[in-house]
Amino acid sequence: MEITPSFLHKLYRGKWELRVRVPLARNLHVFYTPGVAEPCQSIAADSALVWDMTNRWNTIGVISNGTRILGLGNIGPEAGLPVMEGKAVLYKYYAGIDAIPLCIRAETEEAILAFLSAIEPSLGGINLEDIKQPDAFNVLTEARKFLRIPIIHDDMEGTGIIMLAAVLASSSMAGLKLESEKIVLLGAGSANMGFLQLLDELLLGNIGNVIVVDRDLVYNSENSQQHWMGNILSKTNKLGSSNLEEALKGASFLIAASRPGPGVFPLEYLRNMKKPNTVLSLANPVPEVSREEACAMGVTIYGSGRSDDPNQVNNSLIFPGLMLGLLVTQQQYNTAVGIEVAKALSELAMKKQRIVPQMDSEVHQFVARTVVEHFSKKCASKENASMWAEELNWRMNRK
Amino acid sequence: MEITPSFLHKLYRGKWELRVRVPLARNLHVFYTPGVAEPCQSIAADSALVWDMTNRWNTIGVISNGTRILGLGNIGPEAGLPVMEGKAVLYKYYAGIDAIPLCIRAETEEAILAFLSAIEPSLGGINLEDIKQPDAFNVLTEARKFLRIPIIHDDMEGTGIIMLAAVLASSSMAGLKLESEKIVLLGAGSANMGFLQLLDELLLGNIGNVIVVDRDLVYNSENSQQHWMGNILSKTNKLGSSNLEEALKGASFLIAASRPGPGVFPLEYLRNMKKPNTVLSLANPVPEVSREEACAMGVTIYGSGRSDDPNQVNNSLIFPGLMLGLLVTQQQYNTAVGIEVAKALSELAMKKQRIVPQMDSEVHQFVARTVVEHFSKKCASKENASMWAEELNWRMNRK
Repeated sequence: MEITPSFLHKLYRGKWELRVRVPLARNLHVFYTPGVAEPCQSIAADSALVWDMTNRWNTIGVISNGTRILGLGNIGPEAGLPVMEGKAVLYKYYAGIDAIPLCIRAETEEAILAFLSAIEPSLGGINLEDIKQPDAFNVLTEARKFLRIPIIHDDMEGTGIIMLAAVLASSSMAGLKLESEKIVLLGAGSANMGFLQLLDELLLGNIGNVIVVDRDLVYNSENSQQHWMGNILSKTNKLGSSNLEEALKGASFLIAASRPGPGVFPLEYLRNMKKPNTVLSLANPVPEVSREEACAMGVTIYGSGRSDDPNQVNNSLIFPGLMLGLLVTQQQYNTAVGIEVAKALSELAMKKQRIVPQMDSEVHQFVARTVVEHFSKKCASKENASMWAEELNWRMNRK
Repeated sequence: MEITPSFLHKLYRGKWELRVRVPLARNLHVFYTPGVAEPCQSIAADSALVWDMTNRWNTIGVISNGTRILGLGNIGPEAGLPVMEGKAVLYKYYAGIDAIPLCIRAETEEAILAFLSAIEPSLGGINLEDIKQPDAFNVLTEARKFLRIPIIHDDMEGTGIIMLAAVLASSSMAGLKLESEKIVLLGAGSANMGFLQLLDELLLGNIGNVIVVDRDLVYNSENSQQHWMGNILSKTNKLGSSNLEEALKGASFLIAASRPGPGVFPLEYLRNMKKPNTVLSLANPVPEVSREEACAMGVTIYGSGRSDDPNQVNNSLIFPGLMLGLLVTQQQYNTAVGIEVAKALSELAMKKQRIVPQMDSEVHQFVARTVVEHFSKKCASKENASMWAEELNWRMNRK
């Protein structure tokens, strides 16, 4: 019998379990009735104590409605559960976070929002995952208006950060000034829109040299409002490109996050790019352009989403540390902190002549520390900032 | 510093954590992208595989909205979280079940039902907890119409079962025939209504000798419809008792689940009960009648909810094994299985001249096996029944 992922999933029958971490046998009456009434009353009197007396400080939800699981489309909540379990155990493995994998039956934005509102009191943070667009974006925008805990949409924001880190490192290595270069995005889904949102903020809205191509459609100020990121897309393509071939002429960057290769577009287009150039090709499991193909077409710097690629542009480098930093500070995610993390990671990578850092435990601590320091700088209270730093150290030193 | 429950809750800062139970380091690409796509597709093609390829088979939610936490009333979801965490770790400790502690912001029955519907695909079962009445009862009734996973309301159903077990053992020891005896229930909340629901089914509706007293109100066929259990309450009190003193004259049983003692009612009333008699006094932390008081008033058999009482009438004897049996069979809870568990437990207890069994790991296995055997008898497929038995053995033999 071949050892397939399905075989191993059946063998283990789930990826997580609950572990009791109090001495229950000796203290049943303390951790359950009647003693447990006392901390309940304490929290009722001062709700901030819920962070000190329960596991809320370290609990997040990894929440999907199954409408866009990986590249498989809307396969429903049950079928998405293996992914959410996988993400949950990565959170524990990389950042010590207790993440509850939840695939919910909630078709509409309203239903998802109602669920988030209901579950908030039990969680310290939320990772939205694999929800179709524009629903995910709309839910995220609305949820941030009422949630008091941090929420990220990793497919968009986590992926956007690592993409920006790779682009910043590439442009720095090539001696380019980003706002002067032609940047082509192939695909207009969560990943590229997450990247574009950060780039727009970084370049203060000067993204006229960016061209976004989605299959046969090239976005411009005329047609952008049909897209959920229309306000940002309307600032792109001031050069008036009308197809991918034209867009790539003289471009320094191609960032593809569209559909699995090969054959997504004629590879010869790449020969018309400016030199030096960078191609990031993120489709899974087969990139739009392989490393070999990029090499043959004279591409200078290449990265993909594959784990066997030396430049793996992988959101697993981001989400564990990002959520850890947000949990510690209980600040809401925003593009400013995303850009700060991307800048810091690009510098970390360049120290080793790379465009993205290698995956090791230090990268997650580095990201978490960057997040905490970002909010500390913005924080009026120095005491708070010191507490955050100590809390992060404590978390990272737990076994 | 005194070692209080609050001190210990702060020291441990939560009672659970997530444990990764797959070899992640070696198999990242199997348990996360890209390999995880394969089990997702398998489940999309055959949704039953979600029970084989994820932890759903062993995952339940312990769900409250914080509207009736212990005896503390509506203290809100955050303040209820220590109880749900406590219950969750008891599920793991006693029955190996992974229970997610969830205190939700959901004030209305509709909001609770929407949450249950949304979260169902991630869970194998649901334990409703500490939700005020009649909301909990209405939610339970409605939820069973659409949920395809088992759901119990432990405050009502779990507690009702252990109360019935104690009453069955007492009446058997005293040589009484239950339907001929006067049974007084003090309090008309979840616990007593759970007991009454089972008793009504057991006695085929012949509960005219039961008298339910709630503070100054004595239920009868005239006034019962103001209560959420009106249909059952209307069959009680055919003798026409109008107050507790009158009700207790000649009664063989007093089952009190009302409010903490002392001073709930004049203890002298107990002298007018028939001999031999039984008093179960379940208020926490101080019973309505203490063991010493009952003894002084000539009570024959006494039990309370206290952990230091030799006859502890404690729903912790029920819920771990009950949920384990329901998880294995994926059958919905009903009063028939509740009565079967109560009967089996009363016999188990009587073997040791007790009215309730002692708390040990065997009692949970015994309850689970009773549940599985109950549904096996009702099950058309012998193959299913054998699989359930093997699945239960496998679960109980896991470390």
